[in-house]
Amino acid sequence: MPQGNPLEVPDDGLTTRTRRNTPVLAVHTGEGKGKSTAAFGMALRAWNTGLDVGVFQFVKSAKWRVGEEAVFRQLGRLHEEHGAGGAVEWHKMGAGWSWTRTSQKPDADVEHAAAAADGWAEIARRLAEQRHDFYVLDEFTYPMKWGWVDVDDVVEVLLTRPGHQHVVITGRDAPQRLVEAADLVTEMTKIKHPMDAGRKGQKGIEW
Amino acid sequence: MPQGNPLEVPDDGLTTRTRRNTPVLAVHTGEGKGKSTAAFGMALRAWNTGLDVGVFQFVKSAKWRVGEEAVFRQLGRLHEEHGAGGAVEWHKMGAGWSWTRTSQKPDADVEHAAAAADGWAEIARRLAEQRHDFYVLDEFTYPMKWGWVDVDDVVEVLLTRPGHQHVVITGRDAPQRLVEAADLVTEMTKIKHPMDAGRKGQKGIEW
Repeated sequence: MPQGNPLEVPDDGLTTRTRRNTPVLAVHTGEGKGKSTAAFGMALRAWNTGLDVGVFQFVKSAKWRVGEEAVFRQLGRLHEEHGAGGAVEWHKMGAGWSWTRTSQKPDADVEHAAAAADGWAEIARRLAEQRHDFYVLDEFTYPMKWGWVDVDDVVEVLLTRPGHQHVVITGRDAPQRLVEAADLVTEMTKIKHPMDAGRKGQKGIEW
Repeated sequence: MPQGNPLEVPDDGLTTRTRRNTPVLAVHTGEGKGKSTAAFGMALRAWNTGLDVGVFQFVKSAKWRVGEEAVFRQLGRLHEEHGAGGAVEWHKMGAGWSWTRTSQKPDADVEHAAAAADGWAEIARRLAEQRHDFYVLDEFTYPMKWGWVDVDDVVEVLLTRPGHQHVVITGRDAPQRLVEAADLVTEMTKIKHPMDAGRKGQKGIEW
């Protein structure tokens, strides 16, 4: 794929090199599995090439993806101690980020909404500062869907972000304006799932 | 998800624990991106819980996924040197595996077909020996599609594999018999791709 020729060359006045170096805004959406898993797989590749990776989890899910978090923390240590790959930061809404709020009572929707809004504000600051090279905004479609974060603001910030920062957003029901703004949109569709057959999730597979 | 209740409990005489511990056969197919990336993301989780991971790449693609390979080799070293996670083996068709063939002239289709058949035979042996806990058969749908490997044989071996071995198979055009045999099937659909806009792949993103 990387060596393949594009189907059509756009009349945008850019050279192939410029186009190649355009930072990517990717969205993984749909009802199926693999949206976040594929995002973390992309983050692996990014880490391997020395990119600074920032993960921001917006919705409490599957035990916070403890497996991925543990591995990325190991990779972060490999970077700090041995200079391998890139730096890693991992933040969870309500836990990792209390950047602007003073209290932590995550029981009411209003608290969750405030945490999501704070989280997005922090990410927007980081994008402005070019703090990371590769951002995973995990399950970030939900705060947009629920109106906790303004979609137009998100799209504006993403489209005008400076430098060369890649962003991957995951979650079902990606807003249409986000899909339009994105460079790469993949929909994961469930064809068959073990839980349909009455199975529950298991360690090492689901988390 | 892991803690969720299944939609229906099947009348199969199994306890929830037995069902939960059933090893998974997963297939990632479709035209979109993320099939392999999500498989490697699953392998990350598996590694983190101490499972022994074996990766088998069947088709030369995107520089052999050098990024993922580099990271998994690091993880394998973390296991060997510090006891973290599980063991990792990574094999490439024609490179890593020359288990039965003596010559390596990968220029003709017949050579590729023989390499794929050898690769599958080795995997079948490993499944019989319960050599790994988590197998990624990357782009393994293609040798089946091209008739290099017999689908019925694959399905038979997978369905009768002993012990508790998880298998994830990736690639477009998964054969129907494989889909029927699988527990978890996800289709990745391309909604939008940067190459449609004339962009080429870039380091850290595509490989």
